[in-house]
Amino acid sequence: MTTNANLTADRPTFVTHLECSLTGERYEADVVHGLSKAGRPLLVRYDLDVVKAQVSRDDIAARPTDLWRWRELLPVRATADIVSLGEIETPLVPLTKSGGANVLVKDEGRLPTGSFKARGLVMAVAMAKALGITKIAMPTNGNAGAALAAYATRCGIETIVFCPEDTPEINVREIALQGARVWRVNGLIDDCGAIVGEGAKQGRWFDFSTLKEPYRIEGKKTMGLELAAQLGWRLPKAIFYPTGGGTGLIGMWKAFAELEALGWIGAERPKMFAVQAAGCAPIVKAFEDGVEHADRWENAHTVAAGIRVPRAVGDFLILRAVRESKGIALAVEDDAILRAVDDAAKQDGLLLCPEGGATLAAYRDALAAGLVAAEDEVVLFNCATGLKYPMPEAPNWLDRTQPIDFDRL
Amino acid sequence: MTTNANLTADRPTFVTHLECSLTGERYEADVVHGLSKAGRPLLVRYDLDVVKAQVSRDDIAARPTDLWRWRELLPVRATADIVSLGEIETPLVPLTKSGGANVLVKDEGRLPTGSFKARGLVMAVAMAKALGITKIAMPTNGNAGAALAAYATRCGIETIVFCPEDTPEINVREIALQGARVWRVNGLIDDCGAIVGEGAKQGRWFDFSTLKEPYRIEGKKTMGLELAAQLGWRLPKAIFYPTGGGTGLIGMWKAFAELEALGWIGAERPKMFAVQAAGCAPIVKAFEDGVEHADRWENAHTVAAGIRVPRAVGDFLILRAVRESKGIALAVEDDAILRAVDDAAKQDGLLLCPEGGATLAAYRDALAAGLVAAEDEVVLFNCATGLKYPMPEAPNWLDRTQPIDFDRL
Repeated sequence: MTTNANLTADRPTFVTHLECSLTGERYEADVVHGLSKAGRPLLVRYDLDVVKAQVSRDDIAARPTDLWRWRELLPVRATADIVSLGEIETPLVPLTKSGGANVLVKDEGRLPTGSFKARGLVMAVAMAKALGITKIAMPTNGNAGAALAAYATRCGIETIVFCPEDTPEINVREIALQGARVWRVNGLIDDCGAIVGEGAKQGRWFDFSTLKEPYRIEGKKTMGLELAAQLGWRLPKAIFYPTGGGTGLIGMWKAFAELEALGWIGAERPKMFAVQAAGCAPIVKAFEDGVEHADRWENAHTVAAGIRVPRAVGDFLILRAVRESKGIALAVEDDAILRAVDDAAKQDGLLLCPEGGATLAAYRDALAAGLVAAEDEVVLFNCATGLKYPMPEAPNWLDRTQPIDFDRL
Repeated sequence: MTTNANLTADRPTFVTHLECSLTGERYEADVVHGLSKAGRPLLVRYDLDVVKAQVSRDDIAARPTDLWRWRELLPVRATADIVSLGEIETPLVPLTKSGGANVLVKDEGRLPTGSFKARGLVMAVAMAKALGITKIAMPTNGNAGAALAAYATRCGIETIVFCPEDTPEINVREIALQGARVWRVNGLIDDCGAIVGEGAKQGRWFDFSTLKEPYRIEGKKTMGLELAAQLGWRLPKAIFYPTGGGTGLIGMWKAFAELEALGWIGAERPKMFAVQAAGCAPIVKAFEDGVEHADRWENAHTVAAGIRVPRAVGDFLILRAVRESKGIALAVEDDAILRAVDDAAKQDGLLLCPEGGATLAAYRDALAAGLVAAEDEVVLFNCATGLKYPMPEAPNWLDRTQPIDFDRL
């Protein structure tokens, strides 16, 4: 019925195996996996030499512009296992006034369920479907749960979602409306994760926590693939990425390596800036301390709830990518985040989410500190639609039954 | 900086003149216009023979997939006047379970500011910029005001927006945050329109009410252009369109005529279903009464605020398109709207806005009445993201400090 061949055409796939991101130990493809034996995320590996021989970047460019155009670099084998709600390529929107002449926002709020979480979850859910998983649980700060609920519902998988008690009301409601059972918990996201882990150990459901299954990262890496294609097979000078669990940053770094192995881009890389909130900055602390793993951040708090992640299972992968790229991890205060959101809306007409605002605030700091130059092309990730977040009141009221003073309007 | 040639390449344009939609009287292009002398909307006309000689549908298909790929069928002359926040081609999402095997939703909530209003306003604002207009006022039920604010702010045009006092809080706030002055008024959208009209008469601002300037319809017609391109240069059997002011329905009907004149599609047309709420159904009443113009609907009320439009200046154009297409105008009750929204989310994982829900409810009625067949391919327009609208509460709460009864989760 649809004429989008990405969703209907059978195409070859090239997954060879998975490997432990810490030890390199090899794991079989096409069977259910959680973390590696070392307790670390698994990475999907492809036979890139064969991909290179069979597909060109021009082939990709000629296809409909969505996430599934990258099929040969994705893990889903059977076309029938594709789940889709319309994963469009997100636009790059210049942020000329509040950012600068060379600042682009990748507006991820345009994806299904209004956030970049759709990229990871569409892939993870499709693989769960392929592997016969029928019940999934997940801890979430909101957007991941919404994406899980939507995709799982679409293909008949049962879902149970746990979120911190102060998760925005809109997220809790959309998760429920889209068919998941959702529970507010008196704790933070890792407390919710502990409940999910316990239930998984009891065999009640499959654990879909960030990086605890191998396929969300494959979905998220499409941010890096798209960026290369959109910029004419080159990359920007710097990327500012709002970093909670860090799946997207890790995924993009993986994408760039795969694209270079295919000969579709060169060896140059953007500086990766991992952006956190000052009230929850475990990765920044680990970066500054020069260590490979981050300690749990106590008393985490920030207006940018999406990056309120006290402990990230992929901490070492985030830190490795940032360091290899000659970028840095940096933290911004809540007032700078809110000012950035206000400036982008009032000056450029673009409504960012707080986490997106954090990347603009961080860019401003990096520019002031000389870490990027005004002439460097940079990409900020707006990870969700700003419409899901509280906005200031607008109290003007006009009584039309009285004479109207047009001068004050 | 951006590599999207649609926004940077100079391309020929083909506007010859404008004409009154009622009398056919001719008006000069490239000067400021409101309604025609007959008080009716003006339609933009192109030299389609020359377009046909210079551009093919394959040329269009080879360009980046956004609204500006249709440049030769749009009124903006100078590339420098293009305003953009990333007007992507919206995806067609199958609604298999809650709709049927041949039901597609065109998900307009993915556009900038989260609604299809972006299509009309991006065009109208670009033309205002081109024509040197510096101050604009508009009545809105919410989404149009948000789109106006965003685009006008982006190119430095001042905006004043009036909305009914019960306009959803989120809309009022996003309009203000995006740089407009916004006033709540104790009345409906046509009461707000009267204030805008009075100020325009006083020379205080330009009147951007629906169809009172000629270019919103040109932006909205891209819905029809996209649909043809997405379906491989054919059209669906039926289109269900949530109808307030009706600009999009009128615009699509115009688009189909232009595409046929270009030889890019044939003579077949979808049945156009104009969907209204039972609590505000002036077009349905006029359709059933067999008249050309609709009376104002008194005491208008519906959960679908976007189609709560008691009087439409383009009423005769809507009715003409519906009748020519052998479609009908039909009304649905609020409870059927809410049930449709719930079903689409719970069964297909797709969150519709109430107006989108109205199209699903109307489709169900039309199917039951034999007005469409189950095997007919139909397109429902979800005109805005469901995230802007109230959702049912999700009250589950879990105390992690107590032993957890996993069986009840």
